[in-house]
Amino acid sequence: MQQNLRVPGPTPVPDGVAQAGAQPMINHRGPEFATVMREVIENLKPFFGAADDPLILTGSGTGAQEAAVVNVLSPGDPVLAVVGGVFGARFAEIADAFGADIRRLDVEWGTAAGPEAVAEALRGFPASAVILTHNETSTGVTNDIPTLTRSIRAHRPEATILVDGVSSIGALPFDLDGWDVDVAVSGSQKAWMSPPGLAMAAVSSRGWDAYSRARMPRYYWDFRKASKNGAKGTTPFTPAVGVVRAMQEALRLMTGEGTEAVFARHARIGEAVRDGITALGLELFARPEVASNTVTAVRVPGSLDAAKLIKQLRERHGVVVASGQDWLKGSIFRIGHMGYVRDEDIDHLLQSLAAVLSDKSLERAV
Amino acid sequence: MQQNLRVPGPTPVPDGVAQAGAQPMINHRGPEFATVMREVIENLKPFFGAADDPLILTGSGTGAQEAAVVNVLSPGDPVLAVVGGVFGARFAEIADAFGADIRRLDVEWGTAAGPEAVAEALRGFPASAVILTHNETSTGVTNDIPTLTRSIRAHRPEATILVDGVSSIGALPFDLDGWDVDVAVSGSQKAWMSPPGLAMAAVSSRGWDAYSRARMPRYYWDFRKASKNGAKGTTPFTPAVGVVRAMQEALRLMTGEGTEAVFARHARIGEAVRDGITALGLELFARPEVASNTVTAVRVPGSLDAAKLIKQLRERHGVVVASGQDWLKGSIFRIGHMGYVRDEDIDHLLQSLAAVLSDKSLERAV
Repeated sequence: MQQNLRVPGPTPVPDGVAQAGAQPMINHRGPEFATVMREVIENLKPFFGAADDPLILTGSGTGAQEAAVVNVLSPGDPVLAVVGGVFGARFAEIADAFGADIRRLDVEWGTAAGPEAVAEALRGFPASAVILTHNETSTGVTNDIPTLTRSIRAHRPEATILVDGVSSIGALPFDLDGWDVDVAVSGSQKAWMSPPGLAMAAVSSRGWDAYSRARMPRYYWDFRKASKNGAKGTTPFTPAVGVVRAMQEALRLMTGEGTEAVFARHARIGEAVRDGITALGLELFARPEVASNTVTAVRVPGSLDAAKLIKQLRERHGVVVASGQDWLKGSIFRIGHMGYVRDEDIDHLLQSLAAVLSDKSLERAV
Repeated sequence: MQQNLRVPGPTPVPDGVAQAGAQPMINHRGPEFATVMREVIENLKPFFGAADDPLILTGSGTGAQEAAVVNVLSPGDPVLAVVGGVFGARFAEIADAFGADIRRLDVEWGTAAGPEAVAEALRGFPASAVILTHNETSTGVTNDIPTLTRSIRAHRPEATILVDGVSSIGALPFDLDGWDVDVAVSGSQKAWMSPPGLAMAAVSSRGWDAYSRARMPRYYWDFRKASKNGAKGTTPFTPAVGVVRAMQEALRLMTGEGTEAVFARHARIGEAVRDGITALGLELFARPEVASNTVTAVRVPGSLDAAKLIKQLRERHGVVVASGQDWLKGSIFRIGHMGYVRDEDIDHLLQSLAAVLSDKSLERAV
């Protein structure tokens, strides 16, 4: 059975993209690879909203978060971390593990961070950096980054602003330069329709200033090394060559579709998912006004067994969704709808879900 | 023109392995991926000589070095780093960047580290850890790890021994348990006939004790997280799923061939490369008795332009070799012969090299 892979990453990879990644191996120090790298970097720019070249790193999304942290922070730095779910918490934990003085602003899961709350937190805490999550994959909430950065700049104009865009950039509008963000990171296996293994980062000039001051230990994730090598069409260390070539093809598809059309497709499909879920009598976990167009978290009615629901979707219908994380395990499931996603994928998911919900065996033993 | 990719990584990927990596994407938290992971881990064991499960990390070989360092060392630890080339130096630099108190034992490039020199260094320096390179990719030298570990244990029985096996494990015999090594790392794009993007690590029980004491900051590379998730057939963070599936197929080929047969093939081909190079009147960079069976570094005669030689091999014959690194740039070139390498690949390389050497245009302008 062909799977309808609807976890919020890794996301489905179009055949042409998978085949581009399976081409005969090439030398990452040679002219063929340099051509690929240059095209990938150029095509990433409009999605990051960055005039400067985005950086290519080999690692997972969490590696991208670690890279963001260690390149612009120093041990002891007062850092405000806005946390509204598992991935916001992880970003804060990484900064804490490397010695930042973390103040967490906890936002109720399922809601977005408000600019007033951020302002209030900064009044009491002279943060030199702020950690934000654009799209919280664990709750299906999109934060309003430009509103938050304006609020931050009003109180701490020189703060370094780090944004986790792992499950947003490439699917939702993002504007590093226009929104005055300093470091934004993403991962190949989310909106980019590519296999996992690559992380991308864009850095503002304020971000590079922070880099020059930063004293957290770093080697593998070093942005300067990535930047210097990127300018020569290569990477400091052997990259995931196959994934770079897959991304070359995926970015051609995305560029061909057009950035605005890509964003519009995600908005339309996000709405279709939410409408369909609501029509089935299920409840969204995220507040509707901040619900994400890349990930939808759905509450599992108390009478039903979430693990069984997920299992039946997979085994009977080939629809693969993700469970809840942390304290949400067992009470929600999550649907990924970013990257390679078409209306028919969502129709199939909703039909399969309707069929599974009508099955009495899902009810919890009392 | 089909390339004869003969850089010391990334190495050629057999078609079946590339196609295994291009299968439709799957959920890294699902049962399909768990089956793949378990097989990969099981098939890695004999090549690492480790009874315990090797760990799977997403990153480059340099990421694997960083992982080894941050998991078992603390800032201020006295660490002896045996350095005989670019990659030994890099391993030491990483430990230094994370705050270890590094004492370098510099070994003449092209020669192997001697047990007496290591013993002598340890007499003057109470190292709690020693960093070794099994196969130095920049010089084509293989160090005799069991002889070195015996020498280390005689002086510092409880030292944590870290071994870079990036360009050796999977092609040269390795025995973590038998040689009393504590952490050994490798990379998918070398002996494993797979695309770059994955790193592997094996850890001894002494290595795990060191992990418990180690205080270098770590998050992404955390061995305990990788171990706990590995036991469940997954990874702490989204892995390079395609590369894991490629490795599943590559390891089936390697296991089918048999570990001893794999090692014998590398020994035979290593010798054929050295014999062929010598027969062409060229000189090996490494001392013959320690020359590597995975990488051969060849001196470029002073009368010839190394960059032109490398370029002509690529453009006229489709043979891709690597330049020298660091101070060896321009004076050597390097041939990779690990992983997917057959006698005919080497015959073609040697014939192409003979043709290029007969071309007078290679001579340096005086």
